[in-house]
Amino acid sequence: MSDKTLKLSARQTADFELLGNGGFAPLTGFMGSEDWRSSVENMTLADGREVWPIPVTLATDLEASEGDLIHLLADNDKALGRIRVSEIFERDVKHEAEHVYRTTDEAHPGVAATVAEGPRCIAGTIEADAMPDHEEAFMRRYFTPEQSRQEFADRGWKRIVAFQTRNPIHRAHEYLTKAALEVCDGLFLHPLIGETKSGDIPADVRMKCYEVLMENYYPNDRVVLGVNPAAMRYAGPREAIFHAVVRRNYGATHFIVGRDHAGVGSYYGTYDAQAIFDEVDIDALGIRPLMFEHTFWCYKCEGLGSHKTCPHTPEDRLFLSGTKVREMLEAGEAPPHEFSRQEVAEILIDAYRDDAQG
Amino acid sequence: MSDKTLKLSARQTADFELLGNGGFAPLTGFMGSEDWRSSVENMTLADGREVWPIPVTLATDLEASEGDLIHLLADNDKALGRIRVSEIFERDVKHEAEHVYRTTDEAHPGVAATVAEGPRCIAGTIEADAMPDHEEAFMRRYFTPEQSRQEFADRGWKRIVAFQTRNPIHRAHEYLTKAALEVCDGLFLHPLIGETKSGDIPADVRMKCYEVLMENYYPNDRVVLGVNPAAMRYAGPREAIFHAVVRRNYGATHFIVGRDHAGVGSYYGTYDAQAIFDEVDIDALGIRPLMFEHTFWCYKCEGLGSHKTCPHTPEDRLFLSGTKVREMLEAGEAPPHEFSRQEVAEILIDAYRDDAQG
Repeated sequence: MSDKTLKLSARQTADFELLGNGGFAPLTGFMGSEDWRSSVENMTLADGREVWPIPVTLATDLEASEGDLIHLLADNDKALGRIRVSEIFERDVKHEAEHVYRTTDEAHPGVAATVAEGPRCIAGTIEADAMPDHEEAFMRRYFTPEQSRQEFADRGWKRIVAFQTRNPIHRAHEYLTKAALEVCDGLFLHPLIGETKSGDIPADVRMKCYEVLMENYYPNDRVVLGVNPAAMRYAGPREAIFHAVVRRNYGATHFIVGRDHAGVGSYYGTYDAQAIFDEVDIDALGIRPLMFEHTFWCYKCEGLGSHKTCPHTPEDRLFLSGTKVREMLEAGEAPPHEFSRQEVAEILIDAYRDDAQG
Repeated sequence: MSDKTLKLSARQTADFELLGNGGFAPLTGFMGSEDWRSSVENMTLADGREVWPIPVTLATDLEASEGDLIHLLADNDKALGRIRVSEIFERDVKHEAEHVYRTTDEAHPGVAATVAEGPRCIAGTIEADAMPDHEEAFMRRYFTPEQSRQEFADRGWKRIVAFQTRNPIHRAHEYLTKAALEVCDGLFLHPLIGETKSGDIPADVRMKCYEVLMENYYPNDRVVLGVNPAAMRYAGPREAIFHAVVRRNYGATHFIVGRDHAGVGSYYGTYDAQAIFDEVDIDALGIRPLMFEHTFWCYKCEGLGSHKTCPHTPEDRLFLSGTKVREMLEAGEAPPHEFSRQEVAEILIDAYRDDAQG
């Protein structure tokens, strides 16, 4: 029995946290070859029932043997705990990419990360002594799955809809979270704060946007803001299921799936992340998707809506591309109040200004 | 075997229609004493499983015997078909009122109608040769349950939410139908056009309001407007379940239940019609309630919402009492555009004007 140490990448650190805090239940450690293969090929664990659409593996070149106890450090060197090695195996990275990401194109950030990690994986149950560090702005909104379940129970909520996001919340998304909330007891805003690709707005800036919405536009007795420490995979449809599994563990009963959920570039069809829910056993999944269309402000409706609820034409609707919004914010100009709450726009304008000066 | 004729009341005519067109399935005739008792006491048919919260009985003093065939006429004397008498029984009207209406106060319109009908009931399966007549404005939106189910199937809808109303649709209700539609595939607007109490706006005026909304504010590829020929019972919670049963038969999978559903006066608590769904077997019911709060325009939100989705104060919200709205319309004044679509307001103003002149 050895006494080795392995420093985890940012992504592996996030996976350790979710394995350790129950966010990846029923997983209690990094996957072995059987779970890996079943997850890749069948979107379930090796038991054939538990839905698991993206492997959670610990790729490393560290020399080790079965039975070894390896100490694990976070990406900032904080000691987190250890893994008891139960298996060392080679995964087929191309096979994983084809199934999980539906592409082997290394321009895809999820594929690139998988290829960079390489095939050799160490499997085993983890023991967690500590959780990775997060800034105070995140910690004040931190719930473990056990804590958020308790919070929902304390509030008497039975139907809890979770919203995943890696973006600031503009009015179109505020609208769909509220439409979902109207038919549930509570809303769990659960932005992802782990590793994202460059070009995405940093989590600390986004947190300020969420907080200002909690302060001014969301009723705090009906909405809980938490943080999901996971890293983005950009696996589109597979990740929509993955995001749902994690929110089930946090106690949600329903999960919002919009268009292009967790997508990147043009690797996935607009509705692929909704259609994939037909391929899984929803009862085994234990959380129900609420599907949403693209939402927008319509001047004739005098309100927000989607193609499902607004009968008017594109000319009646406010449309701003992501590029256009970014240009406006960079120029210090707030998008129209029908597009973005002015409090949110101000935070983003400040962030772009600081970024330009930084 | 006799050959008798019975002229039905307006309410009985409506019941005949729903028994004949499948809207009251699995009932195929007016209830006997066992179904009556089970419906009153247990909210199920005598089989103990089928949810049935309000008895459907044929009260009459017509002399008859078991085995008789009685010809049935609509309230306008149209020949509808016949009933084969399987039982003649005395119902306990007070017992029915206490359970179904939660009151024996004859100021309650449902209680009053039951008392007026009296205790003696004729039970038996009906045979329908014809359906009661309706004006063209209703017939062009008429679906039998079989036809609406086919319509939803043709449109590829799996999740269909039905909305019951006996009022014009103002923006608050438009909002909640659209919030429900956002999480479903289609919306079934299914106003009740049978007998209502005096003071309610007549069905023909309401139809014009619904049509103008279909023309201007509801996408016709996502919304079907039908008509429910049933008479109102004003049984509050029991009738919310009753309304849900009927919409299940018409093919809906979800049913909107707001505050004070089907209520009258102050006989029922605000949320009684939502809470009662906890008392029935939802799987046996075969349709799921979507519960809504009171909805309103909020100036700070710049949109519609409820106490669940709007954190602001009453002063920030547009509130108009029913009395106030009626006064405005009678004076030829349209309510604010945040309250009512102007096209709807114009129809109501015209109707009040015609009513005053008529």
